[in-house]
Amino acid sequence: MPSPATSPELVLYGYFRSSAAFRARIALNLKGIVAKQKPVHLLRGGGEQHEADYKSVNPQELVPTLVHDGDAIGQSLAIIEYLDEIYPEPPLLPRDPRGRARVRQLAYIIACDIHPLNNLRMLLYLRDRFSIGEDARAEWQRHWIGLGFSTLETLLAQSPLTGRFCHGDAPTLADICLIPQMANARRVALDLAPYPTLVRIESHALTHPAFEAALPKNQPDAE
Amino acid sequence: MPSPATSPELVLYGYFRSSAAFRARIALNLKGIVAKQKPVHLLRGGGEQHEADYKSVNPQELVPTLVHDGDAIGQSLAIIEYLDEIYPEPPLLPRDPRGRARVRQLAYIIACDIHPLNNLRMLLYLRDRFSIGEDARAEWQRHWIGLGFSTLETLLAQSPLTGRFCHGDAPTLADICLIPQMANARRVALDLAPYPTLVRIESHALTHPAFEAALPKNQPDAE
Repeated sequence: MPSPATSPELVLYGYFRSSAAFRARIALNLKGIVAKQKPVHLLRGGGEQHEADYKSVNPQELVPTLVHDGDAIGQSLAIIEYLDEIYPEPPLLPRDPRGRARVRQLAYIIACDIHPLNNLRMLLYLRDRFSIGEDARAEWQRHWIGLGFSTLETLLAQSPLTGRFCHGDAPTLADICLIPQMANARRVALDLAPYPTLVRIESHALTHPAFEAALPKNQPDAE
Repeated sequence: MPSPATSPELVLYGYFRSSAAFRARIALNLKGIVAKQKPVHLLRGGGEQHEADYKSVNPQELVPTLVHDGDAIGQSLAIIEYLDEIYPEPPLLPRDPRGRARVRQLAYIIACDIHPLNNLRMLLYLRDRFSIGEDARAEWQRHWIGLGFSTLETLLAQSPLTGRFCHGDAPTLADICLIPQMANARRVALDLAPYPTLVRIESHALTHPAFEAALPKNQPDAE
């Protein structure tokens, strides 16, 4: 990755274990941008994301939020597209519209159809309102991750556009979404044997310092 | 909207009631593009989206899919960004990066944090595996839609950038996501009184022929 340049006007509110914040960290690292990190502890007390200070930054009470010169941007994919527009190098999307569509499709399969079904607040609803036990909640998570991963494996394995990363040999938005989701899959003990292409891409990505430095365990707020 | 031009190389697989397909129809209409529509009945038999013919087009077995010159693109937001890149006028995103980030944030609040929690396959899981009854499923839907709508109402009501549409006076990706989600909210009888800005924008959007023509009831496969 490019050598980091401090950008004091950029602040990233996140949480070490949030996979959406993990995505934003990878993107910043790939761009070689150092943002000031402000941890928001999602489990401490009733969750710091619900406190007035943070709600004024992000009324959705979710992480991450990027603040740039006083403007707050929520939603990890909006943050990443924004970073890619204001810091174009290295690009996080291909140059050609079909390639961009392919990468966005792969990313949205994760961001729209996998991740929302295993985030914290949804799991708390299943537990507290529907009395769904821990094993059944883990099974629910494995179901949705597995369904999405099957699609991704098919799309990636059958396309000549797939390289060492999801699209060619350089990381894109698709890899930025995939790697945190792989960590979530391992956390709920999903069997990854049916997804050899995903495992191969993950192994390669984790040799890249931008991904490695963004891992939850390498954050200052890691427990 | 611009006068329609037939683009025989564009095919949209959809379903009249799918809000993701509804989004893609609005975008095509705003661009003045006539795509060949191929209905995929999500409820007939075991669901036509699971049949081999459609799986070869979209291995995720979801609608919509746009096929352009033989290349298939899944995920409604990937389709819309693609259309906006290959047919730039009228734009579906603002020109400035901060404006684009704002519109994408609004769109993803719906596409990532509301819609996936009330789509068909997820509701079938709640019913069939967790034995969640119809009333509780509707309450679940109202909960997630209401939570997202509260955020949207706050973000829209407090910003001088909000106009007759979500961002200024022309429709963008945010409105394309909002209008179908409003239809879903009405279907589960969510009280919309707390969201006057959303209701106002919806009323205005439905006077626009691109939105009106994309309504589920105006599709050839409507029941």
